[in-house]
Formats: sequence, structure tokens, C-alpha cells
Amino acid sequence: MCGIFAYLNYLTPKTRREILELLVNGLKRLEYRGYDSAGVALDSADGQDMTIVKKSGKVQALQDEIFSKEKILDFEATTDCHVGIAHTRWATHGVPSEVNSHPQRSDPNHSFVVVHNGIVTNYKDVKMFLEKKGYRFESETDTEIIAKLVHHLYAQHPNYSFRELVEQVIQQLEGAFALAFKSKYFPGECVATRRGSPLLVGIKTKTRLATDHVPILYSKDDTQGGTDPESQNQDHRPHGRGDLPIITRSESTAEFQPLEDKEVEYFFASDASAVIEHTNRVIFLEDDDVAAVKDGLLSIHRLRRSLDDSHSREIITLKMEIQQIMKGNYSSFMQKEIFEQPESVINTMRGRLNFDTKTVVLGGIKDYIPEIRRCRRLMLIGCGTSYHSAVATRQLLEELTELPVMVELASDFLDRSTPVFRDDVCFFISQSGETADTLMALRYCKNRGALIVGITNTVGSSICRESHCGVHINAGPEIGVASTKAYTSQFISLVLFALVLSEDRISLQARRSEIIEGLKHLDEKIREVLEVDDEVKELAKDLYHQKSLLIMGRGYNFATCMEGALKVKELTYMHSEGIMAGELKHGPLALVDKQMPVIMIVMRDPVYVKCMNALQQVTAREGRPIVICEKGDKETQSFASRVIEVPRTVDCLQGILTVIPMQLLSYHIAVLRGCNVDCPRNLAKSVTVE
Amino acid sequence: MCGIFAYLNYLTPKTRREILELLVNGLKRLEYRGYDSAGVALDSADGQDMTIVKKSGKVQALQDEIFSKEKILDFEATTDCHVGIAHTRWATHGVPSEVNSHPQRSDPNHSFVVVHNGIVTNYKDVKMFLEKKGYRFESETDTEIIAKLVHHLYAQHPNYSFRELVEQVIQQLEGAFALAFKSKYFPGECVATRRGSPLLVGIKTKTRLATDHVPILYSKDDTQGGTDPESQNQDHRPHGRGDLPIITRSESTAEFQPLEDKEVEYFFASDASAVIEHTNRVIFLEDDDVAAVKDGLLSIHRLRRSLDDSHSREIITLKMEIQQIMKGNYSSFMQKEIFEQPESVINTMRGRLNFDTKTVVLGGIKDYIPEIRRCRRLMLIGCGTSYHSAVATRQLLEELTELPVMVELASDFLDRSTPVFRDDVCFFISQSGETADTLMALRYCKNRGALIVGITNTVGSSICRESHCGVHINAGPEIGVASTKAYTSQFISLVLFALVLSEDRISLQARRSEIIEGLKHLDEKIREVLEVDDEVKELAKDLYHQKSLLIMGRGYNFATCMEGALKVKELTYMHSEGIMAGELKHGPLALVDKQMPVIMIVMRDPVYVKCMNALQQVTAREGRPIVICEKGDKETQSFASRVIEVPRTVDCLQGILTVIPMQLLSYHIAVLRGCNVDCPRNLAKSVTVE
Repeated sequence: MCGIFAYLNYLTPKTRREILELLVNGLKRLEYRGYDSAGVALDSADGQDMTIVKKSGKVQALQDEIFSKEKILDFEATTDCHVGIAHTRWATHGVPSEVNSHPQRSDPNHSFVVVHNGIVTNYKDVKMFLEKKGYRFESETDTEIIAKLVHHLYAQHPNYSFRELVEQVIQQLEGAFALAFKSKYFPGECVATRRGSPLLVGIKTKTRLATDHVPILYSKDDTQGGTDPESQNQDHRPHGRGDLPIITRSESTAEFQPLEDKEVEYFFASDASAVIEHTNRVIFLEDDDVAAVKDGLLSIHRLRRSLDDSHSREIITLKMEIQQIMKGNYSSFMQKEIFEQPESVINTMRGRLNFDTKTVVLGGIKDYIPEIRRCRRLMLIGCGTSYHSAVATRQLLEELTELPVMVELASDFLDRSTPVFRDDVCFFISQSGETADTLMALRYCKNRGALIVGITNTVGSSICRESHCGVHINAGPEIGVASTKAYTSQFISLVLFALVLSEDRISLQARRSEIIEGLKHLDEKIREVLEVDDEVKELAKDLYHQKSLLIMGRGYNFATCMEGALKVKELTYMHSEGIMAGELKHGPLALVDKQMPVIMIVMRDPVYVKCMNALQQVTAREGRPIVICEKGDKETQSFASRVIEVPRTVDCLQGILTVIPMQLLSYHIAVLRGCNVDCPRNLAKSVTVE
Repeated sequence: MCGIFAYLNYLTPKTRREILELLVNGLKRLEYRGYDSAGVALDSADGQDMTIVKKSGKVQALQDEIFSKEKILDFEATTDCHVGIAHTRWATHGVPSEVNSHPQRSDPNHSFVVVHNGIVTNYKDVKMFLEKKGYRFESETDTEIIAKLVHHLYAQHPNYSFRELVEQVIQQLEGAFALAFKSKYFPGECVATRRGSPLLVGIKTKTRLATDHVPILYSKDDTQGGTDPESQNQDHRPHGRGDLPIITRSESTAEFQPLEDKEVEYFFASDASAVIEHTNRVIFLEDDDVAAVKDGLLSIHRLRRSLDDSHSREIITLKMEIQQIMKGNYSSFMQKEIFEQPESVINTMRGRLNFDTKTVVLGGIKDYIPEIRRCRRLMLIGCGTSYHSAVATRQLLEELTELPVMVELASDFLDRSTPVFRDDVCFFISQSGETADTLMALRYCKNRGALIVGITNTVGSSICRESHCGVHINAGPEIGVASTKAYTSQFISLVLFALVLSEDRISLQARRSEIIEGLKHLDEKIREVLEVDDEVKELAKDLYHQKSLLIMGRGYNFATCMEGALKVKELTYMHSEGIMAGELKHGPLALVDKQMPVIMIVMRDPVYVKCMNALQQVTAREGRPIVICEKGDKETQSFASRVIEVPRTVDCLQGILTVIPMQLLSYHIAVLRGCNVDCPRNLAKSVTVE
């Protein structure tokens, strides 16, 4: 997750200072999307070249850098027509550094520059291809291949328009992206496109707009038969159909243009928060739309027409406040992040899990797999929520790796001076990659010769840098202090690891297929779970005045109990505790009576019968359990005083679906109790002290 | 822990039915001390032999057995002078079975029979000696050697009195014992003695007693110089000083005799509960007292006079109810068991740990030590409190064995189908030895070829029988549902195991010595901790109306937090939770405010600084922590709103001392809340269902 911002002014004169301030302010609005480094590209003061300023750290650091270069950048010069692009980064490939910052360039002459949000999953293949063509890469990013690929195509097809070049490029890309391009060869033009990652265009004019729709131009019309040999040829040469027109206003209404005059400003941004202070008129681009501005005219292109296409993009008038836009329709980042999980889990799998071939590649650790297979045991080490993700996946890791798996709290692990051996493989799990205890534990294990694997959400973090190898969970920045989407993405990363380790075992293939199938449909099921939001809100109304809450489960869902209890603790300051249902009779059952609120997780998995025993023990003591169970499981529901239904998935993935009602519940209780959801008292997002 | 009961009637005619009823009722009063099996010995109906009736199971089973033999036993015959001895057993050596039940006999002719409470630690040496002399043993008990040894001495010294024979025997015994003897050769005589285990004599007469003291008779007088060669010789032949007199009443007042007449009944019992229904006049014997009754006269003998000896034993008039006596001065078994810990920890070490040579022998597993040393990892598996004892000792086991140590909840271990390998050593910890989940986990591991070690308090339990080897924790029967002394004894058993595994490591000798020194003084320190009882009671008054309680600590004392929280849960139904202090910042700190009661354990151990950080975090959030810390640690105390001081011991044993205030606290809160301490709601002592 990164933030893209581009600004194009046409016949609306601006000083270079104004343009830079506008770009930097746009980035500041997008900073919640990433804050590892930031950069801008604009025309050089003499207009002959391009100037790129990049800086590690937050946008403020970039701003300071820019304003320290006031003279070189010639702040006071005015320009009538100009394109500036800007970016704030959340590292996924390559550590946070200036060279890995965006904009990325095609060559030292800045023929083409690009900013990118997303992950290009086939970038290694493209990179290899371009290296054979003589390109030398300066960064570790997946993005740099885009800049170089467009340059390569330009060299081959000097007659292509800027937009055509971009259309060519995106046909070569796999993965997720939103892109904005600028080129020395196409001054005053900007091309932007998206697939998977969000992108919108903001339009600012002095007068009202002539239309509220922008029609779509198609390079070819697939409704006329995609197997036509001619059209297939055209697929490779989209302008082969004759110069695909940069249709002017007189010829067509396909471009957008203001009614009264030609003066216009365009904004390309990852979300509306960056443009709302300038204009409330925006177009949300769809996947594979290519939006191009030339001579102040905006056109939107698609390569093919599909049957359900709407043939135009609506210009929407936003009626929202900035704060609201930043959080979407959500009242807090935490709520937003809960609802982002259908996407974030896909991002974790993107480019790694091929559902067709049922293969999993974790690029970050693949060279170490043979060593890991030979190890004595796996140790998973983390704190808080990260620790719970290890608890959640321990059983599957044991099953698929057939290795002993130890799960440790980093602090306790250090306190105990736990013996670690050269043939141990130690996983360190931390959203921020900076958790002090986890980092200390990493160093402790590294000193003892163990292989160190980092599982973080933050490329370039200390844990990333100090690991031998690792997996980036790709959940996107998490702003809410209470972790939600990072948990589910950590969970999936560890599942992917288990799948990798078991790929060579014939006896495990059926199980692997089942899990991969489960992962394939996980996003839909998460969407389904999120529909319980209103029910959970009602439940929260019944619970929020309580002092205590017990959450019970066992097997694959025990981690959900611990994680759910932690969420409730963190957000609501209610004393909640996750209880292993198997331990009920060894003490905790004494707590159960009519008053004590009890949530139980009872799924139709191998421990179902045992969970039902626990459920009946609770009802026998006059407890009135709230049961999280499978959709339509009437038998189980008959024992419950209240039910939250979740769809069924593979047993070992069920914890991803059962934790979501708990996330929602903690959120709603916190709101009802008047607590600050994004900044719970006494806590900080990333615990960088022991 | 077993119950001894003997009854002697002199010139007080009783039917055999009366005598048997009296013996059985005595045992019933003592049944809380053990209920594995029971037995009685009395003269045979023809007076020529002895009859022994023994039965596995509770005393009721023995009673049924006896009354099914009404005819054979000739219930209606009356006897003027008779000795009957009886016993209810808590197995420590040998499974519960008839052959291992007491009374144990010297030979099939019943020359001598004995009942025993305690553990003879050198019984293997004595057994070997006796086997060389031609004795054939029929039981697995340590007790049988006593019966055979007295027989052997009788054969060698036919002129010795019964009492002299017993004096000889106890000089050969190491360990703890209370004994009562009966012999075919000394009809109407009973000799009883004790060392370490309790024993009292009850006296019943029709008229008031002539004296309230019984003077002590000495075989020799050590105050005259123990190095006198003559007296050393006498040491081997205590009657060498001339026939050490069975002094008659006319010669001395050394025997007790009733004032008016010679009619008298004597009771020997492990505690007063068994005699109070017959008489309230008792003498509590001291270690190494030998009490003998002959011709209706009681005399008390000691081998040597020591300077601080009182020269007589007082006859005390009891003013207590039966119920009160059974529980001592305690209001519940749990409270009694808490206060028994100075003794129970000694019993766990008895005969295993030699403080002089610093050697540890765990007879039950010593043949398996080489195999254990070669293992891949140790796994400790239990439920509830037993699990906590594993958590408490894990760090020390890791340190001293240098093996990976995994600690698992039995239910979760089974739920996860955890991989287990042939070279794993699995410990199963259970007070009762019957805990269903633990037993199932044992079978699971055994099927997979692991070495199985049982750690139980119950010889002959399922876990004992199904283990390859094991350690009996010797804590004595635990009646209170909430485990207390079993926890500390499990803890020590695991420490002893760690000491055994490290005995051959030069680099670990200093550490071992330190720990052994700590164990040596542990009983005194426990006594010292128990003195905080009143303070804890005051604290309970402040806390008992609270809804929640957090107990925080880390390192060696984290297990105390979990165990303390479990005790509070079980007994008081208050929602308490043990929190790893290192995890505070990862969530639980949100719970802390002025209201939330927090107990923190802060010892001057390697995690002291980290604990102080946590303490300061809590005070910074306006928390008002109650701190359990070392005596006199003013610096730490300055951060506390309230302090409970415990003496310092070796870091790895400190958890035994810190858990006791938590046991006391849970007890006092439960009493204040009006809860049933010995039978908490919803719970049972031994969880024999999954």
C-alpha cells in the first residue's frame, strides 16, 4: 500500500513553489498509506530535463529537503502547463531508501518516470528480459521495471502515443498496481492506470462541467469476436487499426473538457482525501482503465469492450469531509482495517499462490527451503497479536512440516534464556518489524547460529534487515493501534509457509489442495463474515456494560479466543480472557454462572464433540453462552443463548473467519463505552522498548 | 501419608466384634490421610495365632470384608487383654493391593506385624541385608523390611524385650515413620514409635489419672559424654548396662498407670480425630520416643538423653471437636494443606536428596537416566495446576538439562495431534494420576514410542501404571479440590529431576550446589512465608468485593501468576488472570487504572529490572500495585501501594515461596465471600473425564 498523487495544470499558471506545495500536501493526505519514504518528479527549471527529489522517512522529510533546495528548484518561475507526480511509499520490495523511493525512472535522462502502488508479481521475469536488453537496474523495487519497460517499448515504437505505450506495458504486468506516468518525450501529458489498487481522477475547473460522464474509448471491440485473427494481431499492435485517435473535441465527446474554456487542473490520487481540498468532482477508475490527459483533454481507454461494461465513467460529486474520506465510510482506522481484510488477505497471497497449479512460491525464503527442511525444530517468536498468529497456525505447521514447532512469547523466551541450537529455524513475527522484545530475541537466536526468518509488514524494518530471509505479509499500513488485518495476513503467511514445506509430500497433497481451495475463496468468505456487523453491534449493546468476558474455544480456534480477548482488553478496558475450553474443568468453570458473559467458538471440526462438552458444561452451570458457529448449524445453536454465524472453511483457516466477529465486537463495545478506538489508553502501535 | 490406629484393652473385657468395630471406626476417622487400602491385625479366635484382614480401596471395603467373615472371626468371644492394630494406606511404595497393604508381617506365622506411616528411605539396603539372611519378601513396600528386621533381631536376641527390639530396629532406619507393632511372642503388649510422622497415645480410664506427666526412661545418658567408649559400646547393646528395667510401678513412677485401679484402654493413632470419641487425654510423642505398653503399664523410652529434653511427656486434655481435629486448627482442608507445605516439601525430598554429598537419587527413574540424557527433547504435559508446575520449572530444566523443553496443556496437545518422536521423553504430571486428558496424552505418546515418565501423588494410579518410570511426589493425600501442596511438591520433583540430569556436568556444579542449599532451607523459608497469613488476610478484606484481579510477573515467577490466578478463580469466582509482565505493553496495560487491583511479583532475580519497568508502567497509569517482593527490599517497596514480603531463596526456587501468599490470598478471599473452600462450585478434585 502506497500513496500516489499527480497534478497537471493546463492553462492555469502556477509557480513552481505552488506546484511543489500542492504535491507535498497531496502526499501528506495520503501518508496513512505508507510513510517509509516519499518523492516527487517535476520538470526541471529550464524545462529541458526532469528533477526528482526523494527522501527516506515521512513526507515532512521530503518537504524539508525540497525547501532546502529552494534556489536550485527555482521556486518563483511560473508555468502554464505542467505535470508533477508524487509518491509516499510503504515498502514491499526493497528497503526504505532513496534509491528505492518513487518516482522510479527509466534511465538517468528521465525519459520516463513512474509512481506505483501495489505489487508487480512477475517483475523478476520482466527484469531478466530487460537486463538482456541491456538495461541496468539501480533499485530493488518491482516498480523500476515499469519505467524501463515503457522506455523499451518507446524505443521500439517511436510512433506510439504515451497512452498506447502504457497500454502495452500493463499487458505485460501481473499483480496489483495503480500507476501514474510522466515523460520527457510527452511534456504536459500524464497517463495513469490501475488494476487492483485504487486510483481516481479529480477535475477542477472554474465553471461547471459540460457532462457528468466520460465515455470510454476502446482499442478494439471484443464483443465482435475475440478470436478474429485480425483483432488478435491488433492485440499486439493496438494502433494497427489505424492511428487510434487522440480524438479532439470537435470529433467526439470521448474526452472530457470543461464547458466554457480550456483552463483545467487534473489530480490523480490513490484516494479522495488528497483531492477534496481542491475539487469535489472525481472519477473512480476501474481495473484496466487507462486515463490520459493531453492538451488539457482527459480520455479514458480500455483495450477491450466487455459485455457488462458501462461504456462511460461517471463524474461523481463528493460530499464528504477530508477526515471521512481518509477513513472511507469508517469511523476509525481500525474499523476500516477490519473491513479491508478481504483485500489484504488477497494481497498477502498475490504472486505467491498459484491457484491453478497449486504451487506456492515465497520469494523471500525460497533459497533457504532446503535448509529449513533439514532443521531440528521450528520456533515461532512474537509478542501480543503476532504471538497469537503463531498459536493459530502451530497445529498446521506441525501437520504439514512434521517438525516440532515451539511457539514463544519473545519476552518469556528471553527471560528463560531458552536453549537455541544451530539447527533451529526461528521465525520472528512483528507487524512493524521493530518490536523490541522480538528483535532482541532475534539477535539472541542469531548469535547462537540459528536460521532467522522474519515475518513482518514493514520492508526495511530492523527485523527485516537482520533476518537471513523472510516473508513480507503485504497487509498494507496498519494505523489502528489494535492489530486486525496484520493478524489475518500473518496467519496466511504462515499457512503459505506450511504449504511450501509440504509441496514435496505425496501423502499431504490432498490436504494441501483443500487448503489452497480454502484460500482461494477466503476473501468472499471474509466478506460474508463482515455482514454480521449489525448483529455484532446489537450484541455489543448487551455486553458493553459488563465487567468481564470469557472467550472459550480449543483446537484451531483457541488462538481466536486469545486474540479476541486481547482486542477486547486493548480497546474496551473490559477484563476479557481467552480460555482453552479443555481447561474449563481444571478451574475456570468455577467462574461460570448466570451473570458471567461467555463467548464460545464451536465449529464442526475435529474438536467439535469436545467443544460441545464444554458448551454443555457451561449451560449446566446456568451459563448463557454466546456461540460463534457455522452457518445453519441448528444443533449447536440450540444450546446457545445467542448465535453469531460464520461461513465454513477448511478447519485450519477457520480461525481467520472466527476472529473477525471478535474484532468487530471489540470495536463496537469500545465505541459504546466511549473509548478511543484508534488510540487505546496506555498503548502504542509499535512497542520499541522492552 | 497413611493413618495408623492401634487399640489395647487391659482388664477391660471386650467382644471381638467391639474390638473390630473400634479399629474400623478409628480408620474411618483417619481416612483423609489415605484411602488406597486398609487392614487390621488381631489375635486369632483361638488365641494361638494372629488374624490379618486387608482390603484394597476405602475403609468401607475392609469393613464389608470383616463383617462377611463374622463366623470365622468369632465376633462374640470376649477378651480381657488384647492388642489390635490397623492401618489405612496412601501408597508410596508399591501399588495399592492387598499384599502391599498394612499390617505387614515378618513371616507367615505372624511373629511380628507392623503398621507404618512414612517412608523408609534406606529400605533397599536393609532389604538386601535381610535377603542375604534368607528372608523372602512378599510385598513391594518399604514397610515389610521393618517387620522382618524386628524378627531377625528377635532371633538373635531372644532375651530382649519387645520395646528393646523396636529400639534396635529404629536405629537401623532412615527416613520418616510412625510405627505400631504387635507380636505373637509378646501377647498383650504394644510398642509404638515415631520419627518425622505424627503419633499420639490416647488413654482411657474410668477414674481420673494419677499424674499429668509420664517421665521418660533413658537407655543411656548422653549428657554424661557421648564419646565415652563404654557408652559407645552400649550403643550397640542398649541392654548391656544391665537389664534395662521394665520398671514396675513399685520401683518407679516412670510408667503411667491409673490411680484407682488397673483397668485401662490405650489408643495409638496418627492424629487425635481417631481417639477423641473415646478419650480426651492424649500424649503427643516426640521424634524417637518409643512408647511401650506391657501389663497395662505405659512407659516412654528414649535411647539417649539430650540437654534440651523435657524429661517427661505431658498428658494433654483435648477440648476439640472431631471435625476440628481432623483439620487440625484449620477451617478447611485446603488451609491445612497450605500449612502442611513445610513438611510436604521435605517428604518430597526425603531419601532422594543427600544434602551432605549433594547427590540426588530418584529411585523410580534412575535406570532410565542414560536414555533420558540421549533424548531429543523433554515434553512436560499436564492440566491446570500440574501444567503450572511444568511452566514453573521449565527454565531450570532447560538450563540444567540443556535440552529443548516443551510444556503443553494435555487437552491442547491432543487437539493439535502434536508430532511426537521415538527419541522424545514425555513427562505426565497429575496429582491424582487419573486426569483424563493427561492420561490420554500419555497413551498417545506411548503409542508413538516416546519414553513415558509419570509424576503423580498417587502410587498405583493409571498414570503410574502406564508410565515406563516415574517420580512419586510424596505430598500426602490432598483433600481440598484446589491443589496447593501438590503444586509445590510437583515443583520440587521436577527440580530434583533437573539436578539428577546435571550431576555429571562440571560447569553446572556451582549452580547445583546453590540449588541444593536452597532446597535444604526451603522448609524454614516456607514457615517464614506462612507468617504473612495475617497480613494477607487484611489484604483479602480490601480485595474480596472486587470483580477482577490481575497478577503480573515474569521469568521464574510467571508460573506463580498463572497458578495464583487459577486459585483465585477456583475458590472465589472472581475473574483473575495471570499476566506475563513482558506482554503488558502489548495489550493488558490498557486494563490498568486506579480501580483495577493489580498484584505484581518483583524479586531480585535476573528479570528484576524488567519487572521494575512493568511496575513503573503500572504506577504511571495510576495503578496501585500490591507487590510481592523480597524481605527488606525498600527500593522496590517504595513503588508499591501495599507489600507482601517473602524471604529470598535461589531464583529458580523462589516460585515456591511466592505462590504461598497467593494460595493464602485466594483462601481468605473465598472465606470472606462465603465460598466453600474445599468444594468450589462446578469443580471436582480429580478430573477423570475429558
